[in-house]
Amino acid sequence: MAIETSYAKVDWKGGVLVEGTSRGFKVTMDEPVDEGGTDTAMNPVELLLCSLGGCMSIVASMFAPKFRVDLKGFSVELEGDLDPDGFMGKNPNVRKGFSEIRYKMNIVSDSPEENIIKLHKFIEEYCPVKDTLKGVPVTGTYIVKK
Amino acid sequence: MAIETSYAKVDWKGGVLVEGTSRGFKVTMDEPVDEGGTDTAMNPVELLLCSLGGCMSIVASMFAPKFRVDLKGFSVELEGDLDPDGFMGKNPNVRKGFSEIRYKMNIVSDSPEENIIKLHKFIEEYCPVKDTLKGVPVTGTYIVKK
Repeated sequence: MAIETSYAKVDWKGGVLVEGTSRGFKVTMDEPVDEGGTDTAMNPVELLLCSLGGCMSIVASMFAPKFRVDLKGFSVELEGDLDPDGFMGKNPNVRKGFSEIRYKMNIVSDSPEENIIKLHKFIEEYCPVKDTLKGVPVTGTYIVKK
Repeated sequence: MAIETSYAKVDWKGGVLVEGTSRGFKVTMDEPVDEGGTDTAMNPVELLLCSLGGCMSIVASMFAPKFRVDLKGFSVELEGDLDPDGFMGKNPNVRKGFSEIRYKMNIVSDSPEENIIKLHKFIEEYCPVKDTLKGVPVTGTYIVKK
């Protein structure tokens, strides 16, 4: 198959409010009041956790039949650690983004444990967002309009 | 400062429809009909692009004054390349996630170009989501309920 290219556009709406659009679907991001925002939506790092959990969930639901798992319910809780000292420039040895992400999947199924083990292993290896978080080149440019 | 931990929970809603929640804010993910979804929301990899663009935009708006950039408008377009052969297991040499992400920022400002160059360089280096995409450990477990 050929490479597929996903596309999104994000527009700044003033303050720290932004709106992302992809294929006509919209998502809003904001920050809490103590971060200078208006607290109307989750922030980009929280959205990143949702993207990861969403990808894991969709892979689980799509591939459960392949591993003969009767999936009756699925959820995933995610935590990401970030030290603001990095982002705020207070400590050059601290990274700016998440230093670690942890997840806990809740799988509701009465299928054999060995099948569930295989499904979990598959999600671990094949989830596209999880794979992307191993590291991906991000390059770009800017243009200025007066 | 102490490490801050962001938290999200994602619930499978049936089919390939999922809902993410963080601090009470919700975001829905789905897939197009030809991917087995109901096409009601963007998918997780598109949401990942929005997270990155949103983070860049918020960093731009927060730090424009520091670099004496009068920001009159800001948007960013993002593209991510993904070869489905990896995810579908057709080619073990193809990665499952994005192989590359490209962005183009549109900065509306009549401030001096040298200031805008500094702001762009800062976003490149300090955007937490962009930094996370250099690679982050993702680890976890699952529990099964009958």
